[in-house]
Amino acid sequence: MLGELKALLGPRVLSGPEKRVYRYDAILVGPEPLAVVLPESREEVQALVRLARRFGLPLVPRGAGSGLSGGAVPEEGALVVAFTRMTRLELDPQGRTAWAEPGVTTARISEEARPFGLFYPPDPASWRTSTLGGNLGENAGGPLCFKYGVTGDYVLELEFVDAFGEVHRLGRQAYDLPGLLIGSEGTLGLITGVRVRLLPLPRYRATLMAAFPEVGALAAAVSQAIAEGAVPARLEFLDPTCVGAVEDYLGMGLPRGDALLLAETDGDDLEVVQEELSLVEETAASFGARVQKARDEKEAEALWRARRAVSPALGRIRPKRVNEDIAVPRSALPQVVREIQALGKAYGLIVAQFGHIGDGNLHPNILFDPGREPEEKVWELAHEIARVALRHGGVLSGEHGIGLMKKAFLAEAMDPDTLEALWAVKGALDPGGVFNPGKLLP
Amino acid sequence: MLGELKALLGPRVLSGPEKRVYRYDAILVGPEPLAVVLPESREEVQALVRLARRFGLPLVPRGAGSGLSGGAVPEEGALVVAFTRMTRLELDPQGRTAWAEPGVTTARISEEARPFGLFYPPDPASWRTSTLGGNLGENAGGPLCFKYGVTGDYVLELEFVDAFGEVHRLGRQAYDLPGLLIGSEGTLGLITGVRVRLLPLPRYRATLMAAFPEVGALAAAVSQAIAEGAVPARLEFLDPTCVGAVEDYLGMGLPRGDALLLAETDGDDLEVVQEELSLVEETAASFGARVQKARDEKEAEALWRARRAVSPALGRIRPKRVNEDIAVPRSALPQVVREIQALGKAYGLIVAQFGHIGDGNLHPNILFDPGREPEEKVWELAHEIARVALRHGGVLSGEHGIGLMKKAFLAEAMDPDTLEALWAVKGALDPGGVFNPGKLLP
Repeated sequence: MLGELKALLGPRVLSGPEKRVYRYDAILVGPEPLAVVLPESREEVQALVRLARRFGLPLVPRGAGSGLSGGAVPEEGALVVAFTRMTRLELDPQGRTAWAEPGVTTARISEEARPFGLFYPPDPASWRTSTLGGNLGENAGGPLCFKYGVTGDYVLELEFVDAFGEVHRLGRQAYDLPGLLIGSEGTLGLITGVRVRLLPLPRYRATLMAAFPEVGALAAAVSQAIAEGAVPARLEFLDPTCVGAVEDYLGMGLPRGDALLLAETDGDDLEVVQEELSLVEETAASFGARVQKARDEKEAEALWRARRAVSPALGRIRPKRVNEDIAVPRSALPQVVREIQALGKAYGLIVAQFGHIGDGNLHPNILFDPGREPEEKVWELAHEIARVALRHGGVLSGEHGIGLMKKAFLAEAMDPDTLEALWAVKGALDPGGVFNPGKLLP
Repeated sequence: MLGELKALLGPRVLSGPEKRVYRYDAILVGPEPLAVVLPESREEVQALVRLARRFGLPLVPRGAGSGLSGGAVPEEGALVVAFTRMTRLELDPQGRTAWAEPGVTTARISEEARPFGLFYPPDPASWRTSTLGGNLGENAGGPLCFKYGVTGDYVLELEFVDAFGEVHRLGRQAYDLPGLLIGSEGTLGLITGVRVRLLPLPRYRATLMAAFPEVGALAAAVSQAIAEGAVPARLEFLDPTCVGAVEDYLGMGLPRGDALLLAETDGDDLEVVQEELSLVEETAASFGARVQKARDEKEAEALWRARRAVSPALGRIRPKRVNEDIAVPRSALPQVVREIQALGKAYGLIVAQFGHIGDGNLHPNILFDPGREPEEKVWELAHEIARVALRHGGVLSGEHGIGLMKKAFLAEAMDPDTLEALWAVKGALDPGGVFNPGKLLP
């Protein structure tokens, strides 16, 4: 089999020690794959699927490996299909679209679109390295998604290779197969291309930072500001643990002990942009926050640097972490953040909360040292946090996907009949079970 | 069987002559159904599906019957499930959502949301009578969809009864089953409820009408204005045939012989709203149009009345019509509208073109009198018009769905493998073929 694979893809088959690097994503580690292949065209992907089908080999698609749910982590004996060499990108500024292969990095689309006054809104934190294929697999979000929506909202057409090695290129009509593949974590087909929608760049932006004495008050202010009509482009928060960690890391003078809200409004009219920001400012102040407005782009950039530094900063507190990704109704936010804080205390584990609070999308991170804190306890707490979300009418994944990490939680969140319906869809599109087995569906 | 049905739903089973009314939608007529049932709850829908399954009876879901592709037209011996009695609507203004049963009329959501400063954007022409269930089945659009997106873009959660009579209530995570059901024309399950997203009402609107000497120039102006960054809320057009028909009907002083463009911009800042309209105005003028701006809401309303009158006005020219619903890339618009005009002339049939030109979504209507013009020729021309769309990289349905009317065209638009994949999905979710057989999939 390896012989045939090498005849097909030559040096782009990795079967030596270098394949060990492909066991990881950004949160989990799996066994070593049988081999890693780096296709360069849809035709190579087709040949690969036919070969895998013939030998009964599982295929695990992979982008940059920056995922946070284990979706790209291989199982024993799998073939990892790394799409990082499929990087063709064609802009159509007149039609405001771009055609991209799955290995194109997320940030590159906006970079190449900027000279035409356009941008591609979905902006996962890893957007400088993450690929469009991975973003599609997990239906990735990001801070801008509060105003602009997630990856799937920008897909006009999708090209994929099915379980029989056939290529399909489909718009979103009749049965929405593109929509079905988006977020399916590579379990239904291999995406080989996508046409995405681009938007005109807004002319103005304005940013503020509001420091709250307590994290529940912050959540209540967010809930109220939005109910009153604010539609910020970004609305992010850091709890006191995150603020302390970032301050230790960057020393930029953040108020230790406070919870921070960062808000950005954007648009084509400066007055409206500032008016919207004032609505957030006044609401925050009425909940006891001290508010600092950025006076220019540079000050705004400094404030956003604090938000982007959260992940590396938390890595300095404990060597490992479990990154939750729940989403709850905004009206439930104050209670949810408080309950999660209390759970962390009860378990004696450090829980740091941050995330896209405008969407009700929280990332409670459990920080731990496997030498000091037993991993089972960590996973038990993660499970409890998931239950808090479900109890308040929320969902298990805002934007990271289910992957390996939340499969067990999904079994709790869905009734058996619904799960059966999902398995029926899987069986119809991937009857041989070739695509990313063991992921997503419990 | 009818006995059991009547035991189940009593007087809400129609098996007398009144069932004849349920043979129609707004474009096609089918055979008389076996019976019509009017369920009032999800439990009744469940019982109905189980009964239909036991007796092998096809179920044809139906809303207001205002559809334009035959999706709700029964086949011989079918049971029509009319959802017009399931009209519960619950607003959550704080969360900016509404929960609606399928029989709720489209316009009612915006009407009830208005006191809270909110609205529901999808606005098919029939929105005063059309139901949410029908809108979901066909993934309906409308003029506002250029800026705001179609029905599916507003769905947060969907409740449906599957082929085994089980109820599922799902958000849009893991496999996007709600997305799969939206636009599936009742062929995969029966929708019994939906949670939709509401938006804040824009504070200002501005409207203009531009009269072009030729329809291709109008299309070219639209393509250019959008490429330059205009994002109007509505962008509609009427070709000279439509203008003449509306003028005959309403006598409002429209310029006969011209093609008309109607544009509306909206937003929270009057200056930006007017600036965006000026961009459309200048581009239109540069393509030789005479532009008239509405000075107030009343003038704007009068201009939009012309657009809404197109359908009844065309009905006065010939007793029957075939309403096409193609969508093409905006850059192809000038050539597409000219080619369709030429095709109409070559066939010696009246073709009136109008539609949501901002989206590239055109409704070429072939007007005919079955006594004077042979119907086969009409359908041949409809097929040719569909081919024009496909040749220019377009699709067969912008917003009306495939239904019965475009099944044959869909066979041409899709490769056999893709069609097989769609049938596999149908087989997985509706193994007995109970739901709306004979629709959508060729």
